[in-house]
Amino acid sequence: MKVAILFGSTSDKEVMAKAARGLEQFDIPYKAFAISAHRLPDVLLEKLKSFEKKGVEVIIAGAGLAAHLPGVGASKTTIPVIGVPINGAIDGLDALYSIVQMPKDIPVATVGINNARNAAFLAAQILGVKYPEYKNKLQAYRDEMTKKLSTQIEQEL
Amino acid sequence: MKVAILFGSTSDKEVMAKAARGLEQFDIPYKAFAISAHRLPDVLLEKLKSFEKKGVEVIIAGAGLAAHLPGVGASKTTIPVIGVPINGAIDGLDALYSIVQMPKDIPVATVGINNARNAAFLAAQILGVKYPEYKNKLQAYRDEMTKKLSTQIEQEL
Amino acid sequence: MKVAILFGSTSDKEVMAKAARGLEQFDIPYKAFAISAHRLPDVLLEKLKSFEKKGVEVIIAGAGLAAHLPGVGASKTTIPVIGVPINGAIDGLDALYSIVQMPKDIPVATVGINNARNAAFLAAQILGVKYPEYKNKLQAYRDEMTKKLSTQIEQEL
Amino acid sequence: MKVAILFGSTSDKEVMAKAARGLEQFDIPYKAFAISAHRLPDVLLEKLKSFEKKGVEVIIAGAGLAAHLPGVGASKTTIPVIGVPINGAIDGLDALYSIVQMPKDIPVATVGINNARNAAFLAAQILGVKYPEYKNKLQAYRDEMTKKLSTQIEQEL
Amino acid sequence: MKVAILFGSTSDKEVMAKAARGLEQFDIPYKAFAISAHRLPDVLLEKLKSFEKKGVEVIIAGAGLAAHLPGVGASKTTIPVIGVPINGAIDGLDALYSIVQMPKDIPVATVGINNARNAAFLAAQILGVKYPEYKNKLQAYRDEMTKKLSTQIEQEL
Amino acid sequence: MKVAILFGSTSDKEVMAKAARGLEQFDIPYKAFAISAHRLPDVLLEKLKSFEKKGVEVIIAGAGLAAHLPGVGASKTTIPVIGVPINGAIDGLDALYSIVQMPKDIPVATVGINNARNAAFLAAQILGVKYPEYKNKLQAYRDEMTKKLSTQIEQEL
Amino acid sequence: MKVAILFGSTSDKEVMAKAARGLEQFDIPYKAFAISAHRLPDVLLEKLKSFEKKGVEVIIAGAGLAAHLPGVGASKTTIPVIGVPINGAIDGLDALYSIVQMPKDIPVATVGINNARNAAFLAAQILGVKYPEYKNKLQAYRDEMTKKLSTQIEQEL
Amino acid sequence: MKVAILFGSTSDKEVMAKAARGLEQFDIPYKAFAISAHRLPDVLLEKLKSFEKKGVEVIIAGAGLAAHLPGVGASKTTIPVIGVPINGAIDGLDALYSIVQMPKDIPVATVGINNARNAAFLAAQILGVKYPEYKNKLQAYRDEMTKKLSTQIEQEL
Repeated sequence: MKVAILFGSTSDKEVMAKAARGLEQFDIPYKAFAISAHRLPDVLLEKLKSFEKKGVEVIIAGAGLAAHLPGVGASKTTIPVIGVPINGAIDGLDALYSIVQMPKDIPVATVGINNARNAAFLAAQILGVKYPEYKNKLQAYRDEMTKKLSTQIEQEL
Repeated sequence: MKVAILFGSTSDKEVMAKAARGLEQFDIPYKAFAISAHRLPDVLLEKLKSFEKKGVEVIIAGAGLAAHLPGVGASKTTIPVIGVPINGAIDGLDALYSIVQMPKDIPVATVGINNARNAAFLAAQILGVKYPEYKNKLQAYRDEMTKKLSTQIEQEL
Repeated sequence: MKVAILFGSTSDKEVMAKAARGLEQFDIPYKAFAISAHRLPDVLLEKLKSFEKKGVEVIIAGAGLAAHLPGVGASKTTIPVIGVPINGAIDGLDALYSIVQMPKDIPVATVGINNARNAAFLAAQILGVKYPEYKNKLQAYRDEMTKKLSTQIEQEL
Repeated sequence: MKVAILFGSTSDKEVMAKAARGLEQFDIPYKAFAISAHRLPDVLLEKLKSFEKKGVEVIIAGAGLAAHLPGVGASKTTIPVIGVPINGAIDGLDALYSIVQMPKDIPVATVGINNARNAAFLAAQILGVKYPEYKNKLQAYRDEMTKKLSTQIEQEL
Repeated sequence: MKVAILFGSTSDKEVMAKAARGLEQFDIPYKAFAISAHRLPDVLLEKLKSFEKKGVEVIIAGAGLAAHLPGVGASKTTIPVIGVPINGAIDGLDALYSIVQMPKDIPVATVGINNARNAAFLAAQILGVKYPEYKNKLQAYRDEMTKKLSTQIEQEL
Repeated sequence: MKVAILFGSTSDKEVMAKAARGLEQFDIPYKAFAISAHRLPDVLLEKLKSFEKKGVEVIIAGAGLAAHLPGVGASKTTIPVIGVPINGAIDGLDALYSIVQMPKDIPVATVGINNARNAAFLAAQILGVKYPEYKNKLQAYRDEMTKKLSTQIEQEL
Repeated sequence: MKVAILFGSTSDKEVMAKAARGLEQFDIPYKAFAISAHRLPDVLLEKLKSFEKKGVEVIIAGAGLAAHLPGVGASKTTIPVIGVPINGAIDGLDALYSIVQMPKDIPVATVGINNARNAAFLAAQILGVKYPEYKNKLQAYRDEMTKKLSTQIEQEL
Repeated sequence: MKVAILFGSTSDKEVMAKAARGLEQFDIPYKAFAISAHRLPDVLLEKLKSFEKKGVEVIIAGAGLAAHLPGVGASKTTIPVIGVPINGAIDGLDALYSIVQMPKDIPVATVGINNARNAAFLAAQILGVKYPEYKNKLQAYRDEMTKKLSTQIEQEL
């Protein structure tokens, strides 16, 4: 397991599955966990410690509303935490602000609202700093996309 | 100590002092603690447990930006937690949403942006459910205010 | 009746029923009243006075749009008032701001948009300050949730 | 007294004085009152009844934050109520939404944030429906402004 | 015709019909006109002049998006103009701000988003300043509502 | 005069002067006019007609609050109208929405809040479609900026 | 080809087709291209250069979310660029701000959210500065609309 | 140079210096560059390519308004890009949305408004995945802060 995917509630699974699909695309091993920051704070704490021990290298955490999970996770480990704001109300702005506006010294690497796929790509880019294979796979995918999209530039409207 | 006042950073002291003044007005014993939810998560956890043991009856927690302190506090105790959103950016809307939009079963009793004085009054009302003296003091203060304001209704503009 | 649930319009019933269900979960006796702050201001005033006499200990008030009911209620009694912003327009932000941004000395304990269930839990926490049975029931429910959720942490995505 | 100017706190006086100056410009008799909807609800109720008896024809009510005064006033009389949102936080959007988003059947005629002068002009227009002198004075002022501004159209930048 | 109802586009008819129904409830004679401020500026100008001549006493103007119709109307007559923001995008906030934030001396009496019924009630209140019959009908309707709602205060949730 | 600069109030002059400076930079002849859409609607109408006759090719219109001037201008001429939202309240969002959210068929070419300089540059680009000299001057200025900025890329922080 | 229509993703086609329909209405020759600013930055750069060579006179660029395409286009050519914010999240406000709030000297002529039809009309107005036929067609269409709408002013509600 | 700091304008230097200070705290070698995405697109492209060649491992990019620099950077390299929204207008929300709401497959790791210090800490965490020394330094700093803050928990208000 190089990446741990966290979310607080099973209602977040549909969005977070996009992160799983993204990681699989690059053959990055991951596991997923439903651990509410508010329901299971102690379990979360233990789990985060176990991530450090097991060599987890990136954490992806998705949450909606007053989305504390990414920030709480970030405060308890120095593994990079990627936050996914999930739209549960007011167009997801509550989750976005709750995740991105972290206090100094405890950042969360925030991606767009409901954009869990980008969390996976960011994880691949971070892992790519260390593992050339992921960087190469990313580049290969981009090249493939460029090639594919390059053939369909002219469009009928 | 019937009320514990929590805040994450000494930069929050000016706002939170209004809560202290409010509690003093009703002779409610309190103590104040600077415990960042992100810096000192373990200390926070222990402190919250000690609040339960020492019979703290209301917690007032103020925070700005991605304001997790009130919600984290609320998740770890069944003592009522009053949240004070502190304006650190975007007019305090980030703190407001981070505090009020809690997930189900873990409420934070949220008051207005920077309005720590109202947190003290709400604490007095909550304590007033159990202790008639606080209810009486609140009513007396309201009566006094009513009397005072009643004498200055007609105004020159 | 330990808790009075107030709302302004029968269109608010679906949201406010979640408060009723929450209170029943903890065996907290309540009654519900539809009293528009703008339609029946005098009835509201009388009812609030009768709440004081009958020993009501917490008021839950839900409203949408320019949501005045919680604030008007709070101004006429020293019983703690919990406000539930109901989404009737602009994602419920009008109701949220109308409830939470109360002037000094007259707080409303605001919960999340449409989150009437949390109003019930907050009421239970407030009552738990006085009545250990509610505190115990809350803690028991939390423990049960913790146990239940602890068994389903690892997830397939 | 044809117009009653209401506001909740003496901190609103600077904004509301613009309403007074506007009414004086059209020689519309008015009186001003500081009556907090939350502090002096009974005084407000009585005052509104006395306005009906004394033949007050327009009410101007200014408030900030969770601005209930205009709406509470509107609910207790059929005299037209003009609401002035006063900027006390979040750029005055809390006051704007609290005043304009009234429930059905109880309108408040809302003007711009801090724009108490426009409340006076609207009052003059409403009175102008009944009293030709105010309509004439408004028209004369507009004509004068048109004339004055017409002489300074070409500008150096 | 005591009231003229204006709107810019036939797509606004569904919302504005609520204003018509409200006026009919009080037997207030009205006519309705679709005149886009941007499409038919000259027709609008003429129509507004004819309103003055024909003794129109209140104008209700509804518009969405960059809602200029109420403000343009208000600039060309001293008849009171009631503005109805219609939700066409961003929850109607564009229309609300375009209508309520008028420059000094040219107010629009703004009601809530899509709340054309309240525009009719406000028109009735304004006309009630001059015509006791409308004031009486408003009061009668309010009394009737009070009576009706008073019978259904206690509710099952 | 190839460009007409319009604004509603002399308080807008400071912002709009940036448009003048921008036009001068490209030697584009212009004149500036203070014509409130709400104060001088007839003067505005005439002036817009005269612009058509005199061969004005671009109109720059700046306004704040419920900013109708650009849209009203756009509705009365087929000359391209560039709108400048001026920050007078709520961070200029009221002006932005009032200008950019125009109904179908009547566009205003909107630039950033208070960014009158960009209105001048956009005017130069539009005129550059017809007059190569402006296109060339724009390109020369860009080249010069590129050269200048290229020399100061490495920075000390 | 006088106008080039750009968009980043085929999911934008439905909105951008309205621009195509608008241009066809005025017989303005155009071509449409799907070129993601983030996927095909080099293709975009080349395409923009070719537009300059082929004499493209107006560019219409639509994008959603963090909508960079219009601004990137504007930075690489002095052809006027019209930006269409497409609603992909938070009511399109992310796209609106990403397009309209350009830094100094690099304007994008922004139209309303999803309002690609207005982009076509603005293009016609810009081309009309140089080509009287487009100006005449625009005027003819406006006259026709005026005539058509003038026959349906009185409405039943 | 392990980290490249990019910003568009020298007016961003004050905010971005906080990133430099943060990197120095962990002895992470960096260089800083002022390269406007709109002014120097070709220079930016070349610089990004040279970053890949020189082994830059993290890019920090700060921008205000329609903040395209981080996203444009992210589209041209697979090095992780950290985006810093800089408050230039509307409380920095334009920059935040322009940076965080990236389209799929091209993420920017966004930190809070003006919070360039957190960009440095996030860079240290990302580098810490590969280089244990940065992870150790981060942990040591956190431990030191924990120790320091632990001594000042009880506060006078």
